[in-house]
Amino acid sequence: MNQKSRIKLFAYSPLKLVEKTLKSPEEIKEYADYPVVWVNVNGMEGLEVLEELGFSGFFVRVLRRFRGSKAIVLQDQILLMAHQVYRVERGLKKEKTAFLLKGNLVVTIQERPGDVFNRIREKIRNEGSVLRNSGPDYLFCALLDATVENYVPIIEEISTSVERLEDMVLKRTDRELLRHIQSIRRQTFFLRRAIFPLLESFRKIRVEGSALFGENAKIYLEDLSSHVLEVLDLIESQRDMADGLLDIYYSSISLRTNEIMGILTVVSTIFIPLTFITGLYGMNFNPEASPYNMPELNWYYGYPAVLLLMLAIAVGMLVYFRRKGWI
Amino acid sequence: MNQKSRIKLFAYSPLKLVEKTLKSPEEIKEYADYPVVWVNVNGMEGLEVLEELGFSGFFVRVLRRFRGSKAIVLQDQILLMAHQVYRVERGLKKEKTAFLLKGNLVVTIQERPGDVFNRIREKIRNEGSVLRNSGPDYLFCALLDATVENYVPIIEEISTSVERLEDMVLKRTDRELLRHIQSIRRQTFFLRRAIFPLLESFRKIRVEGSALFGENAKIYLEDLSSHVLEVLDLIESQRDMADGLLDIYYSSISLRTNEIMGILTVVSTIFIPLTFITGLYGMNFNPEASPYNMPELNWYYGYPAVLLLMLAIAVGMLVYFRRKGWI
Amino acid sequence: MNQKSRIKLFAYSPLKLVEKTLKSPEEIKEYADYPVVWVNVNGMEGLEVLEELGFSGFFVRVLRRFRGSKAIVLQDQILLMAHQVYRVERGLKKEKTAFLLKGNLVVTIQERPGDVFNRIREKIRNEGSVLRNSGPDYLFCALLDATVENYVPIIEEISTSVERLEDMVLKRTDRELLRHIQSIRRQTFFLRRAIFPLLESFRKIRVEGSALFGENAKIYLEDLSSHVLEVLDLIESQRDMADGLLDIYYSSISLRTNEIMGILTVVSTIFIPLTFITGLYGMNFNPEASPYNMPELNWYYGYPAVLLLMLAIAVGMLVYFRRKGWI
Amino acid sequence: MNQKSRIKLFAYSPLKLVEKTLKSPEEIKEYADYPVVWVNVNGMEGLEVLEELGFSGFFVRVLRRFRGSKAIVLQDQILLMAHQVYRVERGLKKEKTAFLLKGNLVVTIQERPGDVFNRIREKIRNEGSVLRNSGPDYLFCALLDATVENYVPIIEEISTSVERLEDMVLKRTDRELLRHIQSIRRQTFFLRRAIFPLLESFRKIRVEGSALFGENAKIYLEDLSSHVLEVLDLIESQRDMADGLLDIYYSSISLRTNEIMGILTVVSTIFIPLTFITGLYGMNFNPEASPYNMPELNWYYGYPAVLLLMLAIAVGMLVYFRRKGWI
Amino acid sequence: MNQKSRIKLFAYSPLKLVEKTLKSPEEIKEYADYPVVWVNVNGMEGLEVLEELGFSGFFVRVLRRFRGSKAIVLQDQILLMAHQVYRVERGLKKEKTAFLLKGNLVVTIQERPGDVFNRIREKIRNEGSVLRNSGPDYLFCALLDATVENYVPIIEEISTSVERLEDMVLKRTDRELLRHIQSIRRQTFFLRRAIFPLLESFRKIRVEGSALFGENAKIYLEDLSSHVLEVLDLIESQRDMADGLLDIYYSSISLRTNEIMGILTVVSTIFIPLTFITGLYGMNFNPEASPYNMPELNWYYGYPAVLLLMLAIAVGMLVYFRRKGWI
Repeated sequence: MNQKSRIKLFAYSPLKLVEKTLKSPEEIKEYADYPVVWVNVNGMEGLEVLEELGFSGFFVRVLRRFRGSKAIVLQDQILLMAHQVYRVERGLKKEKTAFLLKGNLVVTIQERPGDVFNRIREKIRNEGSVLRNSGPDYLFCALLDATVENYVPIIEEISTSVERLEDMVLKRTDRELLRHIQSIRRQTFFLRRAIFPLLESFRKIRVEGSALFGENAKIYLEDLSSHVLEVLDLIESQRDMADGLLDIYYSSISLRTNEIMGILTVVSTIFIPLTFITGLYGMNFNPEASPYNMPELNWYYGYPAVLLLMLAIAVGMLVYFRRKGWI
Repeated sequence: MNQKSRIKLFAYSPLKLVEKTLKSPEEIKEYADYPVVWVNVNGMEGLEVLEELGFSGFFVRVLRRFRGSKAIVLQDQILLMAHQVYRVERGLKKEKTAFLLKGNLVVTIQERPGDVFNRIREKIRNEGSVLRNSGPDYLFCALLDATVENYVPIIEEISTSVERLEDMVLKRTDRELLRHIQSIRRQTFFLRRAIFPLLESFRKIRVEGSALFGENAKIYLEDLSSHVLEVLDLIESQRDMADGLLDIYYSSISLRTNEIMGILTVVSTIFIPLTFITGLYGMNFNPEASPYNMPELNWYYGYPAVLLLMLAIAVGMLVYFRRKGWI
Repeated sequence: MNQKSRIKLFAYSPLKLVEKTLKSPEEIKEYADYPVVWVNVNGMEGLEVLEELGFSGFFVRVLRRFRGSKAIVLQDQILLMAHQVYRVERGLKKEKTAFLLKGNLVVTIQERPGDVFNRIREKIRNEGSVLRNSGPDYLFCALLDATVENYVPIIEEISTSVERLEDMVLKRTDRELLRHIQSIRRQTFFLRRAIFPLLESFRKIRVEGSALFGENAKIYLEDLSSHVLEVLDLIESQRDMADGLLDIYYSSISLRTNEIMGILTVVSTIFIPLTFITGLYGMNFNPEASPYNMPELNWYYGYPAVLLLMLAIAVGMLVYFRRKGWI
Repeated sequence: MNQKSRIKLFAYSPLKLVEKTLKSPEEIKEYADYPVVWVNVNGMEGLEVLEELGFSGFFVRVLRRFRGSKAIVLQDQILLMAHQVYRVERGLKKEKTAFLLKGNLVVTIQERPGDVFNRIREKIRNEGSVLRNSGPDYLFCALLDATVENYVPIIEEISTSVERLEDMVLKRTDRELLRHIQSIRRQTFFLRRAIFPLLESFRKIRVEGSALFGENAKIYLEDLSSHVLEVLDLIESQRDMADGLLDIYYSSISLRTNEIMGILTVVSTIFIPLTFITGLYGMNFNPEASPYNMPELNWYYGYPAVLLLMLAIAVGMLVYFRRKGWI
Repeated sequence: MNQKSRIKLFAYSPLKLVEKTLKSPEEIKEYADYPVVWVNVNGMEGLEVLEELGFSGFFVRVLRRFRGSKAIVLQDQILLMAHQVYRVERGLKKEKTAFLLKGNLVVTIQERPGDVFNRIREKIRNEGSVLRNSGPDYLFCALLDATVENYVPIIEEISTSVERLEDMVLKRTDRELLRHIQSIRRQTFFLRRAIFPLLESFRKIRVEGSALFGENAKIYLEDLSSHVLEVLDLIESQRDMADGLLDIYYSSISLRTNEIMGILTVVSTIFIPLTFITGLYGMNFNPEASPYNMPELNWYYGYPAVLLLMLAIAVGMLVYFRRKGWI
């Protein structure tokens, strides 16, 4: 991200709401007495300000390394790192996201600015929403929920690709198609690997961080795991579809071999005997040298008889092949 | 479900039984002093009434999100969400169901009205049945049992499809057949994924909700898990069958290639040498230019000898091929 | 089982032995003071008599439902349900068996009368045997052992089938053979699924029922698990063999394609050039119109030279193909 | 084993060493005051003598049944049963071995006399070795280590076979080769199944038998597990190699099909058009009936022109095929 | 390693730094009062000096045997053995590495001198780095981190190979290519097996050695596991790619068969009927013997008509094949 890291703040109580783009992280402290303060940061630089906001220095170091999706739960604060997935030209890419919770403060950090949290923002602006009337723990869960939800459109794109490929696989058998199918499969593997660690992270937060969540948010946390399982389920079924496409692809190649072979065989087995007969009566045995030498050539109905014979053979073959179901 | 949500109530003791379609959920309270009250609701709207019946507000929120099959066990109440499966035109579809238990009250909620619980209803009407003479915990188990049982006819339909496909796969090798087989396989995966989470839900109810179940119902709960395992077993063996069909399908294509190739080879290898011979004696070497130039053409038995030679070659080939087992 | 359910009793101490076919379950009580009483029941009806013998009513209900292979351990009694497997015309079938232990009483229930326990009966009759001189816990283990042992002949039958198929697969490649191989594979899956749950049942009895077994029987119980593992091992290796057969089957089809193609190619590539040559000299260019028009036809050694040329081509081809290893 | 069961004894302290072949197990007791006494028994008969040596009667019974590889740990004694593997004509065979430890006494029982423990014997004879200066627990571990080590040469034989097959698979594609490859794969499965249970046995000894082992031997025990894992790793990589061979084998068949087809196609597509041309000018249209009837036959350069045309076609085809990479 | 084993020492505090190549391990003791002392040893000989440095004699014995990747945690010291992987001519090779920690002393032992730790050395030389200002526990983690990091370039090499193979697989289908692909797959298996045990080792250090690590290092330890998981993830995705290549390889062979067959079929089915027609009018039926005997031969437009007919057939076939998409 070459763009300047931007900080956006939402501070709200059921009755009041402040929504502001901050110039400096210092300003966050001014809103410390709101029941819920949510700070969204774009870009991974300047993480040391987290320490000023009261988060552990460990969190900053772990965030800098960002070794995969995981959760760290301390006495009074939580760090959850996850991957968001977005589509690039050739396939999918992972993007780092982090969620921090301490007291009334929720911080989200996105490697790449996106619109994942727009739905949350609207719910906050809506005075009657459950979110607006709940605490920071509930907001934390809702933000995670939005992140998980965000995988769904990617899976739907994959699903659309699979359907398009399903039509194509019946018509073509080139290598380009195979690569498409494989790319779909790899994307499902990629998604699975990006999402799966969330299960463990959510479990950890649920078990170790239970002091930080109210009853309401706890149930929400359990739901998050179910949500992830559901998303994994969707991915799994797309992979099944892609596997099925591969099977159809391979069987199409074999069926095509059969089709080609069938045509060759039908044409060959019809004409090869006929050509033999024409060859037979193209021989130059001298009828004058012997009465046994090709007397047919001088028969009155010789030529029509041979034509009829050949017609009969051809028709017989065709009938045979039709019965075999080859033509 | 666009239809109005309908509520049906069964309140019973060993001696008394009330069976009634309710106009409003308010009426449920009138039957509070029956030992068992079962309320079946069609449709997922108006869930807030559950709170009035004493169920936790969490349950309502969890139900609204309905993130997959799972169980939540609180101090004195249980919520179990599961998926029922029914057949639609192209494959299978999941339908949400929920089971709630609190005190003497059992509530079942179905996304789509169905006849899954008819057998339970008849058992309740039968004064001598174990169900009629047991408590709400037993009813809760029986309802779950009926839900599991309900998967069996779906599996049997699949089994019938597999048998029909087994016959077809010996006759045809087109792509339509492959898609049928794959659709069967996907249905077994689908069923497996729909049913498997029940194991965890039942385990959770057994472990965490043991205070809510009598001895009798506890044994029943264990049986439910076995039941699920048995159903999974049935599904697994259908998938084995479908995998076998796939194998037969692929081998059929290869065998057919062999068959086609065999015919081409037999016809070709018989006629190609014969045609060569006819070509040989169709050459125009001038017998008058040299005594070595095709003297056969003027032999007395030249033509019959060549015919015999060709017959001998053809018969020899046929014998050879028969011995090879190709014709 | 439409036959009348028969009850057979063995009551023994190291010194005394009663062996009797009972008319009514009431008679069992007469032998209550023997150290070991074994009652074998054929058929699943009339299970309520178990309650009279002191077994829990739960056991009766669980037995009636018989939801798969499992063990239930109460304070002072054990129920273990398992599947026996026997061969029917097309494949294998499961049969229900149950083992109950309480005090000095061991009850076995078989859905279908069989000779599984004959070896046990003989050991009881033999005064010097360990079994005769041990308690009911040891008998319980020995009966389970006999049940596990009973799987071995089934696996041996499968092994014999595999060996027979191994010979056939080298000669034939028809679909019937494929179905045989698949049936074998399915039987190994079937057996595995029937046997595997025993591991969990034995573990449960060992852990939860340890108060019911003496040291001697406890070691026997551990051995039972090893026995099951060994049987599973045998099954696994049969499945490996069947998988190998499938591989040979598929490769046979491909090799046969190669063989057929090879013959076609050899015959075609030898005769096609020869036929071309005969065609060449079968052309009707008028030698009188020009000295360049097929002067070969009037050469003195024209015909023999062409014959020699063709012979040389054919021999050359044959040498080439032999070197390639095709003929 | 039809040979007489032989007993060999090593009794040693750092300073003294007795090495003796015993006639009767009674003699063992004479060496009871040595710090380490190792008795190696060939053959599985006469196991009751173990009881006289102070081992539990359970051990004798378990050894007689010998149900698979496992360990039993009692208060003051250990029994570990394992399988050794040796090569027979067609594949591998399992052989029973048992290791017992009690006080200063280590007993090893081998179904078949072998030289597995020779290295141990030499270490005992060497006064300076760690083994000679350690207790019976260390000897016990060293004997197990030798048993595990003994799998390595078998795996190396397999590795040699795999390498030999790797060369052959590039030259041949007959069924015999396939069976070789499959036999290798089965041997790796066999080995895996024989060795894998040792992990559990070692774990059990480590956990339950910790009172019987000094610090030194405990570390050795942990090392034994690593050793087994390493051996399993070797086996796994041989199986990978064998799987790779299977892939090469199948692809070889397909490539050969392509090669054969290629030759047929090249020869056919070159000569079929040429033969058509010769056929064309072999037609008997009467040039005298019409000036349009095959005037080419009477052209001055007709024949050379046709020969040139055919040459051009043939060369063109050859160039085309070479560019396609087919010849 | 035939080269002399070399010992390199870093002793540092935030303010002081000694960097020295030692002639004898005795010299280490001179630096005992530095907060962190790191000794890197090349070669596995002379391990007994570890005992003099205060490490357990067990460690020395375990290191000599070096049975696979694992960790041993004692009261006040840790030994972690791991494998590094480097590339040799044909594939990958494992190299032993060991990491020891006791008090202020960190020892690393490498079988083969390498530059894995250069980055660590530079960080130590940099006075402002976190590493320089942390304790030996943090150094221990950083060294492990460098080892894990060192796998990445190997995986990147594999990734490059995969990409190169992806291009080749579209052009060639020879066996050499298959072996390349298989070699890549085997390398991913090899890496996986080399790296996977680290997870267990890190877990063990985290759980059993928690007294030896400060908060900072503990978080680092957790990160190490994530790092390993990430590396395994990379390996997994390379294996997916290689699997995809295998699929493309096989499908290429089949597609090539189709292509070859297609050409043969097109050429054959066009020319076989034409050749039949030429054969037809090459027959020698005597037009003088009967008006029905091949009157076409004497028609005025006979020859042009036949030529037109043949042209029509050829064009028709070509149109048909183009529509089928074969040419």
